[in-house]
Amino acid sequence: MGQVHGPNAARTRGLRIKYVVDPRDGLARAMAVRTGAAVATLEQALEDPGVGGVLVCSSTDQHLEQSLAALEKGKAVFCEKPVDLDPERARRALPRFEGARFVLGFNRRYDPHLLALKRQLDSGAIGSLESLHIVNHDPAAPPAGFIPTSGGLFKDFTIHDLDLARWLLDEEPVELFTAASCLVDPEIGRLGDVDTARTVLKTASGRLCVISNTRRSGCGYDQRVEAFGSRGMLAAGNPARDTVRTFTAAGEAAAPIAGSFAGRYVDSYRDQMAHFCEVAHGRTQPRTGFADGVAALVLAHGCRASADGGRMINLREWN
Amino acid sequence: MGQVHGPNAARTRGLRIKYVVDPRDGLARAMAVRTGAAVATLEQALEDPGVGGVLVCSSTDQHLEQSLAALEKGKAVFCEKPVDLDPERARRALPRFEGARFVLGFNRRYDPHLLALKRQLDSGAIGSLESLHIVNHDPAAPPAGFIPTSGGLFKDFTIHDLDLARWLLDEEPVELFTAASCLVDPEIGRLGDVDTARTVLKTASGRLCVISNTRRSGCGYDQRVEAFGSRGMLAAGNPARDTVRTFTAAGEAAAPIAGSFAGRYVDSYRDQMAHFCEVAHGRTQPRTGFADGVAALVLAHGCRASADGGRMINLREWN
Amino acid sequence: MGQVHGPNAARTRGLRIKYVVDPRDGLARAMAVRTGAAVATLEQALEDPGVGGVLVCSSTDQHLEQSLAALEKGKAVFCEKPVDLDPERARRALPRFEGARFVLGFNRRYDPHLLALKRQLDSGAIGSLESLHIVNHDPAAPPAGFIPTSGGLFKDFTIHDLDLARWLLDEEPVELFTAASCLVDPEIGRLGDVDTARTVLKTASGRLCVISNTRRSGCGYDQRVEAFGSRGMLAAGNPARDTVRTFTAAGEAAAPIAGSFAGRYVDSYRDQMAHFCEVAHGRTQPRTGFADGVAALVLAHGCRASADGGRMINLREWN
Amino acid sequence: MGQVHGPNAARTRGLRIKYVVDPRDGLARAMAVRTGAAVATLEQALEDPGVGGVLVCSSTDQHLEQSLAALEKGKAVFCEKPVDLDPERARRALPRFEGARFVLGFNRRYDPHLLALKRQLDSGAIGSLESLHIVNHDPAAPPAGFIPTSGGLFKDFTIHDLDLARWLLDEEPVELFTAASCLVDPEIGRLGDVDTARTVLKTASGRLCVISNTRRSGCGYDQRVEAFGSRGMLAAGNPARDTVRTFTAAGEAAAPIAGSFAGRYVDSYRDQMAHFCEVAHGRTQPRTGFADGVAALVLAHGCRASADGGRMINLREWN
Repeated sequence: MGQVHGPNAARTRGLRIKYVVDPRDGLARAMAVRTGAAVATLEQALEDPGVGGVLVCSSTDQHLEQSLAALEKGKAVFCEKPVDLDPERARRALPRFEGARFVLGFNRRYDPHLLALKRQLDSGAIGSLESLHIVNHDPAAPPAGFIPTSGGLFKDFTIHDLDLARWLLDEEPVELFTAASCLVDPEIGRLGDVDTARTVLKTASGRLCVISNTRRSGCGYDQRVEAFGSRGMLAAGNPARDTVRTFTAAGEAAAPIAGSFAGRYVDSYRDQMAHFCEVAHGRTQPRTGFADGVAALVLAHGCRASADGGRMINLREWN
Repeated sequence: MGQVHGPNAARTRGLRIKYVVDPRDGLARAMAVRTGAAVATLEQALEDPGVGGVLVCSSTDQHLEQSLAALEKGKAVFCEKPVDLDPERARRALPRFEGARFVLGFNRRYDPHLLALKRQLDSGAIGSLESLHIVNHDPAAPPAGFIPTSGGLFKDFTIHDLDLARWLLDEEPVELFTAASCLVDPEIGRLGDVDTARTVLKTASGRLCVISNTRRSGCGYDQRVEAFGSRGMLAAGNPARDTVRTFTAAGEAAAPIAGSFAGRYVDSYRDQMAHFCEVAHGRTQPRTGFADGVAALVLAHGCRASADGGRMINLREWN
Repeated sequence: MGQVHGPNAARTRGLRIKYVVDPRDGLARAMAVRTGAAVATLEQALEDPGVGGVLVCSSTDQHLEQSLAALEKGKAVFCEKPVDLDPERARRALPRFEGARFVLGFNRRYDPHLLALKRQLDSGAIGSLESLHIVNHDPAAPPAGFIPTSGGLFKDFTIHDLDLARWLLDEEPVELFTAASCLVDPEIGRLGDVDTARTVLKTASGRLCVISNTRRSGCGYDQRVEAFGSRGMLAAGNPARDTVRTFTAAGEAAAPIAGSFAGRYVDSYRDQMAHFCEVAHGRTQPRTGFADGVAALVLAHGCRASADGGRMINLREWN
Repeated sequence: MGQVHGPNAARTRGLRIKYVVDPRDGLARAMAVRTGAAVATLEQALEDPGVGGVLVCSSTDQHLEQSLAALEKGKAVFCEKPVDLDPERARRALPRFEGARFVLGFNRRYDPHLLALKRQLDSGAIGSLESLHIVNHDPAAPPAGFIPTSGGLFKDFTIHDLDLARWLLDEEPVELFTAASCLVDPEIGRLGDVDTARTVLKTASGRLCVISNTRRSGCGYDQRVEAFGSRGMLAAGNPARDTVRTFTAAGEAAAPIAGSFAGRYVDSYRDQMAHFCEVAHGRTQPRTGFADGVAALVLAHGCRASADGGRMINLREWN
């Protein structure tokens, strides 16, 4: 994700990349050239009083530790999701993030299309919200080598949807059920993960949310949300790559949907980084904080437990 | 449903309505006038050797008995869903329907849009099917008085989707989970039913299917299916009432979707009745038979048990 | 067109086909069987006092004469367009059609989609109308043998759009310009006709209308209207054959648009015949009368003159 | 347009704004601050050997003179359209632009949507092109004060479509007809201009093109193209502002289309400036050069003559 956030930050008005920290020397130097920065160790960077903030885009197992180290040095922190793979450890760290200038990379909340849906929802366009359907389908399965350190489908991928669900439902889930399969790549199954899943969340007031996930859509990066309320429905669809439609004897044809997260969420990444700049300067509160990361991680953990056990998880008893 | 099927049959080439049987005398006579038929008792109608078939559109608790009575007299039978409210009794009746000229009113299977989706699926347009999403949202809740005899949300309404799922999945579900709420009308809850539900089915090969139901969409009769395969996605949407779109400073506007099943499925009811005519004349086998009705009823029963118990139902053990 | 209107009338509540008149004996008998009618000569049919109305679907050169013959015998008349090929002769006949129970087959005015657009227009949804764009593209060129007696592109085909323009503009054109080419089939050009044209109409108040015609769209029967007003735009599109959309790596695909007028305007033909029934029974005034046919014919004549002369036609001076 | 191109160039990799030249001192200084430039006179800027190129965004009557002055000093030139208001003067200047590093601001040719349509066209997706429909509707009329120096509807606005038509038709028009009205603002008429127009172009091979213009769409910046070929149709539509659709009992609703050229063509302006950078560095040939500007200006002049004279213009004789 550093390949996305680094150049993104370098283009953000008010931000400048001073150091690139990466144990892989060649990559560090390439990114430094690309962003007009110097290569340094994390210690060097954190000691520099001219550094106001840190973008934590390392492997997941370092997110928590590096974020805390940066916060302790008085830096603002932008951190990729998930905050950690261990919900218990993440929960214990909660107090240390209170009031912190810390932005978590839940990029869906910064997407113009989903923000437009949220505004319509908040404006009462469909009355009171009753249920949600979230589609998050990756175009193609990641290399199997990525699976073991990724946290698996739920902590790596579904976690975005769990955060999106919490944001849109505006209420915490109290029950959770996940059914999952390995249909895309048997190697994923051999590594103990799944690649296709459906999760149902239920809140205390009875609101229902379905999350649809697959690692391989076959048709691009399928990202959609439908919200059902007492007076109607809202649907946020996949933005068209271009507006050209072709009509022939064979029928109507149009361009594929976005092929990857980088293309689909380009505006979201840009606006998220601008938000981080505002947070770093103390001009606004984080829209996606550490507590959101912990809440979504607990739910992702629950998805895995539900899928493994073939049972509904009562989240009130479970935690 | 007699109000739909009666006039529909009267318009079907090859069918003629000879008798109307309805204990409510006024309604019987009105329908008789409308369809050019005479009013009779069931016995009179069944004794008439000039009667080749019977449309069973009575209340659900009479479906099974009346269908059997008609079959015994050598008549072809079209019967509205569900076949019964008791899965056990329905299952016991199975042998008596073997080879029968019996068409069950699972109208989705006759809908041109869903048939087009099925054809694309069968043609391999999206590779092998992996998961399904079925939306079946009623426009507005039925009068509370309808609930007690209806069989409830699952046996009255979801049953259509359960049949649709079996047809499209082309494989029996082995696990089932339903989460349900009463969000639309508290009176429905007081009567022991629910009005909002999400059901997840899983087949032996790992295919997943979500069924989304509500008794009140707020925006019309929302009927959609999405099928996800190894090489892409198929989506069957709501037909537009007209093609006019209005663009003003306020944005784009278009007509509402169909307001009721009668409008949405008018072609499906027509083609289903034509199919019954073919079956009655022995020219083709029933596309939706009694066994389909039993299978869907068992699943609907499972939905209720899952929602009540807050647990996944293992259908292999359960039956 | 008798192949469309005959069976259509036979299905219309309140209408019955008593006689089929067709010099081609085989066709006459086939249609008689199909509609439950007898074969007769025109004289026999017109002499029968049991005949209330006549559908004139003969070749264009007989429309006027046969319509008048039927009206003289006190019959109601439905007549296919155009009323004649000679605007002068048609104009002279105008007085004989005053107050007549005569419906002209300008089927666009009965189409539910175009009626919905008209209603929006009349409701002020886009303020006051300023300009129109009418697309009328045939799927494929007619056999060359049809051209000589057809009246050519303008009197046979564009005439529908000229009537539609008059109806929607709600004001007579005063200027007209047509540019035309022969791009589809050189044989059409050799026969003195064109196959591709654009016509611009201007009304006294300055409203502008473009009519786009081709004999061969390559993608089906393309029938669309856009209306531009002081506060926005209305667009009536091509109805979808089905709602299924397929998404793969190659992009989005959907079914072709309607392949012919019979499919596209099936509702329009049905409603037009029901309207004729009402007119025949004296229960309503014709929505498309002989005067509309003359006005559109004069404009079609102007299109040809403009295209031939490469000049704008001032309709006020011209007639 | 300097408000668009200045900041745009400042963001373009490979370009830097060194001087801002504007007789309106306050505006000059504001733009200088915004782009990190200094305020200077045109002479000062042209004398500076460190200046490699000039963006000519002055009033139309200065375009030609300033472009020539810059070219004489060896600078590359980006110039806004039109090249001049006098076709004869522009034509005389043609030899001085031969081989020049000169990019004309015909931004449509850089728009990703129209480029996608052009690619489809060139790939033969719809066979051979037969006709075109270009919609260019401004959201709201400009202040009347802008009209006298603008060149009027045709040289200021339609000129974009005339260039687009030349590019897509890939063949020069030989005949032209324009019908025009003043329907939007009577003040525009009093100033001798029109605000609503339809133009028909015909090429030597018989291809037809309609251009639809209005100064006030009432629904935003409506920019669409349809191309009709021997095997089908291509349509480039208005990009959606967001993908959210709202469904209620009142129907379907979506966001308005782009409200201005700045929003609609933001990618086009960006890519056009990147292209200018490539041209300035001598790495590529201009995609839109001075000769294109002259050809479109001649056609715009013809539109005016046709509309004024109510007659078709034969462009072969006319020039």
